Amino acid sequence: MREVAILGIGQTKFGELWDRSFREIGIEAGFQALVDAKLGSGDLGALYLGNMASGSLIAQEHIAPLILDYSGLGGRHLEAMRVEAGSASGALALHSGWLAVASGAHDFVVVGGAEKLTDVPDVVANRIIGSTADHEWEEVFGATLPALWAMMARRHMNDFGTTRSDLASVAVHAHEMGSKNPNAHYRNRINLDAVLNAPPVAEPLGLLDCAPFSDGAAAVVLGPLERARKFTDTPIRIAASQVACDTMALQHRRELTTLDSTVVAAKRAFAQARRAPADVRVAEIHDAYTISALLAMEDLGFVAKGTAGPAFAEGLYGLGGKLTVNSSGGLKAQGRPFGAVGVAQAVELVRQLRGEAGERQVQGATVGLAHDVGGTGATSVVHLLERVN
Amino acid sequence: MREVAILGIGQTKFGELWDRSFREIGIEAGFQALVDAKLGSGDLGALYLGNMASGSLIAQEHIAPLILDYSGLGGRHLEAMRVEAGSASGALALHSGWLAVASGAHDFVVVGGAEKLTDVPDVVANRIIGSTADHEWEEVFGATLPALWAMMARRHMNDFGTTRSDLASVAVHAHEMGSKNPNAHYRNRINLDAVLNAPPVAEPLGLLDCAPFSDGAAAVVLGPLERARKFTDTPIRIAASQVACDTMALQHRRELTTLDSTVVAAKRAFAQARRAPADVRVAEIHDAYTISALLAMEDLGFVAKGTAGPAFAEGLYGLGGKLTVNSSGGLKAQGRPFGAVGVAQAVELVRQLRGEAGERQVQGATVGLAHDVGGTGATSVVHLLERVN
Repeated sequence: MREVAILGIGQTKFGELWDRSFREIGIEAGFQALVDAKLGSGDLGALYLGNMASGSLIAQEHIAPLILDYSGLGGRHLEAMRVEAGSASGALALHSGWLAVASGAHDFVVVGGAEKLTDVPDVVANRIIGSTADHEWEEVFGATLPALWAMMARRHMNDFGTTRSDLASVAVHAHEMGSKNPNAHYRNRINLDAVLNAPPVAEPLGLLDCAPFSDGAAAVVLGPLERARKFTDTPIRIAASQVACDTMALQHRRELTTLDSTVVAAKRAFAQARRAPADVRVAEIHDAYTISALLAMEDLGFVAKGTAGPAFAEGLYGLGGKLTVNSSGGLKAQGRPFGAVGVAQAVELVRQLRGEAGERQVQGATVGLAHDVGGTGATSVVHLLERVN
Repeated sequence: MREVAILGIGQTKFGELWDRSFREIGIEAGFQALVDAKLGSGDLGALYLGNMASGSLIAQEHIAPLILDYSGLGGRHLEAMRVEAGSASGALALHSGWLAVASGAHDFVVVGGAEKLTDVPDVVANRIIGSTADHEWEEVFGATLPALWAMMARRHMNDFGTTRSDLASVAVHAHEMGSKNPNAHYRNRINLDAVLNAPPVAEPLGLLDCAPFSDGAAAVVLGPLERARKFTDTPIRIAASQVACDTMALQHRRELTTLDSTVVAAKRAFAQARRAPADVRVAEIHDAYTISALLAMEDLGFVAKGTAGPAFAEGLYGLGGKLTVNSSGGLKAQGRPFGAVGVAQAVELVRQLRGEAGERQVQGATVGLAHDVGGTGATSVVHLLERVN
């Protein structure tokens, strides 16, 4: 298979974008990525679009040709495809685009992710995101996504001595990083007390342990690495793209404190890239809930099982450390427009690997990891990106 | 890219399957396909699942890992992905699976399509299928899918002299073929008078010009052609797999009587397979509405623009002719479980090319074409399948 590079990136601000429609944000991110890649739309072969629930959220299915159309490309008869895996939809779109270019089926493609989540009441949005867990065996009994992750948190606290304060430190870290990101939904710094005293959502998780509902879109342009220098001085190679699944319902898992889908996807990704966790200097991980970030750091192989809480509490993952985590602010502070998240993670890594991340730049980063999760871990996707010297 | 073969097929009955859930029908089709391929689940690498609107229809997103899970494969951590393009979702899933095997990313994959459309009231289903057209510029003004296709029919009648009776003959043909298919939603024969006198839906289209809402699932197992003989004496090669898009809204099209997406996808597919329309002996085409079948036959290159109506009226496409169309009964009689349709088309072609189609067998067929359309033609997908001798 051919080597694939990311040639351009684009992203809207994340947040409550009530003045703009789904199609407008989708187009904005896509155009930015095309301009950044210095690629004419005449070179494009396909669009792969990640989205969780446009049918329920904006009464519109069939959105991949819609975005092509409103980009002015409707008459060009490109290939377009939407892919969906709950909140891992964006990363799956990146996987699809990678496969299309790696296989030789297309040379240049746009990968987009978009979600318009704040045009419905929060209670509706909560029901919709709950439909990414097992509807018949979890959601109908009242188990919302936060409630399911809260059970994982309780078990982690019980088994490993993780404290409420360890969890809260993940949110503090996210807002600190988000304060440096102009695209972030939340740019305010918060402290431990604020997280610990926030209203409970599903104990032990409080309001500030949970990533927000956001609108937003992100896009990348992919092409063959061998032709990348024509478009950019800093092509970023996709060194690995791996997807792994697990049972939908928590009660069928081997255990509650490990996402086996993440463990497997990460192992496959490091093998594909011939890399190890120690090579990674910058990582964008799934922190939809503070507990999610702890499981991610452990299951990706960055720290031993049960030790991620103290690591976050000690502030190991900020700028200047061995590994900077969620420099974008993550889902918690940059925001959580579900289908856009996986693509936005790649966008942030490309910024970092190019050295264009401004005041949140990680010095000397050449390898980055992106980790996206659908539902409570029924899908995990891991990408490894490398700067080509 | 590697040559890809279909090694196994499976399909549920299509119809109002009120006694079975989405996950049950998905699993039934998948298991049938695995058994037919004589493939152990241990050999599988991925699942690609086509589905239009599970979120709106059964309050469940993230359905690809769900089907894996309830197949007993949840602990195997395979890759799984849902793809969506309205009623072309199934064909896009087949395209995704083809790409995964052709690229070498996976050796053996299951491609499934499933939809549970009859668990909601018809008026809700109608709104949901309308969301595959342009919601903001068509559906909110009351333009349902039948209404949009009716405008194409009116224009076709005006421009080419197509008659109401020509249209009706498409439905008569479909039910004749469906009468020979044990899986068909409708197995009753109908006559022209029945179609012409059915209650109007969107004039000139009446109730019997419109394919039904159906539940159903279909699946195929794909693998590398070079290894296919190990599993089957009659591997069916995927000679072409092409996707093309067009504007979402009808008013932006070049004209109303041609689906340019179909024209382009077909041209690409015939070029990829080094074949011509005259090579095709058996075709499964998109006949969601009787007018859809006329446009399909013309846009695929089987007949000149404007002449498909008289061709159907003369009965050219039954068994024994040069080209048999929709031997399954098509969407009109076999049924229309949206996301399953594109996969079911491939299943029917494999039956025909293997010589296993029973009383609807087309003699001597070695090349088959499948044509799936999303919305009013914003997506068209064309596959060419060939029996390998």
